[in-house]
Amino acid sequence: MTRILGIDPGSQRTGVGIIDIDASGKARHVHHCPLVLLGAADFPQRLKLLVQGLHALIEEYQPQEVAIERVFMAKNADSALKLGQARGAALCAVVMRDLPVSEYAATEIKLAVVGRGGAEKQQVQHMVGLMLNLHTKLQADAADALAVAITHAHVRATANRLGVDVRKAWSRK
Amino acid sequence: MTRILGIDPGSQRTGVGIIDIDASGKARHVHHCPLVLLGAADFPQRLKLLVQGLHALIEEYQPQEVAIERVFMAKNADSALKLGQARGAALCAVVMRDLPVSEYAATEIKLAVVGRGGAEKQQVQHMVGLMLNLHTKLQADAADALAVAITHAHVRATANRLGVDVRKAWSRK
Repeated sequence: MTRILGIDPGSQRTGVGIIDIDASGKARHVHHCPLVLLGAADFPQRLKLLVQGLHALIEEYQPQEVAIERVFMAKNADSALKLGQARGAALCAVVMRDLPVSEYAATEIKLAVVGRGGAEKQQVQHMVGLMLNLHTKLQADAADALAVAITHAHVRATANRLGVDVRKAWSRK
Repeated sequence: MTRILGIDPGSQRTGVGIIDIDASGKARHVHHCPLVLLGAADFPQRLKLLVQGLHALIEEYQPQEVAIERVFMAKNADSALKLGQARGAALCAVVMRDLPVSEYAATEIKLAVVGRGGAEKQQVQHMVGLMLNLHTKLQADAADALAVAITHAHVRATANRLGVDVRKAWSRK
């Protein structure tokens, strides 16, 4: 069994989702929650809340691998900078715990979860709920975090079948 | 005496500069160096190098306050994202050590160091060398890191004279 932590970084809310996958690649829901960062006094304190929140989750759930959405493009330079800072702090929290991180593009995630790279956000949300037998509606950031974890589970399963080292095959510069 | 760490974050090289300021506000050069991140295997490992490098410097030099350039605008969304990630990791390294961070806009730094908000990069580099009695030419990232530390020293001195808490007066959301 492998436990995967999926992260959907954001500077106001960061979604986290944790799943277990068994030897056959079947995924089971373990936990999801948003890390709400808006209560912090300033931006550096927000990043601290983010890092502390991730470290607390890593302590409690002991994930072995981490998956995070790769961002190619943001709406504009200002939002890219904010998102980049949240993403940098999240990556920093994870690599400081020596966990291997895989990055996936939004189209890869949609393809893995819905079967179409151009799927709508709502379809991803709906499919994540179905795949993990969740009976309550997921919030967008939790759904995205679980979706990237599921994507990693798929890629791992395929790579295992092909005898490829998933980290080498899927790590990106 | 107060020791200030200035950081000029970048995803390839991050400049760091350390100065001491005495009660009269006079600055003395302590250390500067680039943290070169290009040797890392992938982007998350680069951020790890950055955090480890900053933690090692904080251990060795024990700065009490940290200053970092505030980025309003980047050339484009892609470079903003990369810069944001480096900045997020640097902030995360600093706040995890419970050091107070102040952020300064590029125009504030130019104003403090050269006396004109619209000064050229080279003028900043030149003035930093003069102000700290450095006899070797500074590289751009080290000069920028020392420049933001000097800016913080000036702002602190002014705030002290006015009896204002520098962190409250100059912290930014």
